[in-house]
Amino acid sequence: MESFKRLPAHIGIIPDGNRRWAVKNGLQKKDGYEHGIQPGFELYEMMLEYGIQEATFYGFTKDNNKRKKSQRDAFTQSCVDAVQLLSGKDANLLVIGNTESPAFPPELKKYANKRVHFGHGLININFLVNYDWEWDLNNLIENKTLKSADIPRVDLIIRWGGRRRLSGFLPAQSVYADFYIIDDYWPDFNKSHFLDALMWYQNCDVTLGG
Amino acid sequence: MESFKRLPAHIGIIPDGNRRWAVKNGLQKKDGYEHGIQPGFELYEMMLEYGIQEATFYGFTKDNNKRKKSQRDAFTQSCVDAVQLLSGKDANLLVIGNTESPAFPPELKKYANKRVHFGHGLININFLVNYDWEWDLNNLIENKTLKSADIPRVDLIIRWGGRRRLSGFLPAQSVYADFYIIDDYWPDFNKSHFLDALMWYQNCDVTLGG
Repeated sequence: MESFKRLPAHIGIIPDGNRRWAVKNGLQKKDGYEHGIQPGFELYEMMLEYGIQEATFYGFTKDNNKRKKSQRDAFTQSCVDAVQLLSGKDANLLVIGNTESPAFPPELKKYANKRVHFGHGLININFLVNYDWEWDLNNLIENKTLKSADIPRVDLIIRWGGRRRLSGFLPAQSVYADFYIIDDYWPDFNKSHFLDALMWYQNCDVTLGG
Repeated sequence: MESFKRLPAHIGIIPDGNRRWAVKNGLQKKDGYEHGIQPGFELYEMMLEYGIQEATFYGFTKDNNKRKKSQRDAFTQSCVDAVQLLSGKDANLLVIGNTESPAFPPELKKYANKRVHFGHGLININFLVNYDWEWDLNNLIENKTLKSADIPRVDLIIRWGGRRRLSGFLPAQSVYADFYIIDDYWPDFNKSHFLDALMWYQNCDVTLGG
């Protein structure tokens, strides 16, 4: 097991490239999402191994709902399946997203907007489901707090699929996060991706502007 | 002159590495900032040449005020000098920052929080001076709008100095921005940096999550 001189307390995960992976493998775009579940659990196990305290996974967003119904159904089902599997593990789960929209999966309402404890609760896992950055920020106007107020500052964001942007991921918590981009598509996750990200992060000079 | 199939309408500029450049060149850290002014005007001329409509430059932030007084004085003076020079050019200037703090340079108050027109106004230049992302977002609570509400969505962010983070740069406007990182320090700006960034950007697949 590698040893690191400094680890991120909270990691943001943007598991992009499921549709491109499907096309590359001769499948329909919608069929990529179900291949993104197992990688999430491999990563979960690695985070436990390295003592990461918290991770936020980007499930799907309001923007993503502009896609075809077959794809919407597929990514929504994958989020439900992922939570179902996680409920048998050791995590404290917080689902953040707009539950008042029909795009929010009813199966996940019981986990939304309050933290739920599974097993030995070894790590905090936040899951953004039907999340919308404007909905999050605009809650400052209505209720003087972010919808995601229970999610702390993100130290490191790892994005798969090569794109170099946040795509609306937690704008307030990401202001000081260091970005690590992996060109491989998310379903092609392998352990070296995560280790390389931690290796890179340990040498980032965290100043918070000072 | 290069030709591009797609150009960003609004570019964010994070001119980092002035202090590291100074140390590398045997100067005191504070002496780096004044070497960051001329690069800004070279970039301004290139943006006019390529028809860029708007650019936001990261001047200094509330976080930066944690630095030594000699450095604070130097970066503040460089911001004042830059605006002084810009006032002789063709730009529409909007300075955004907390003018109620003593760290805000009095010389720039007349340009703050409203757009001022210089010459033929060929480009919108926004300049973040004593900017603070929390101050910006928290205005949603008090006044139901961002302090930076007059600055539109950013398409491309170019950061010099190798760090891969936003450091609090316009969190609401940067949600969909593509990030281009240049390892060279800002005072070592050269034209190929900007051309390479535009070259890269034209092939980014802008989906806005759809």
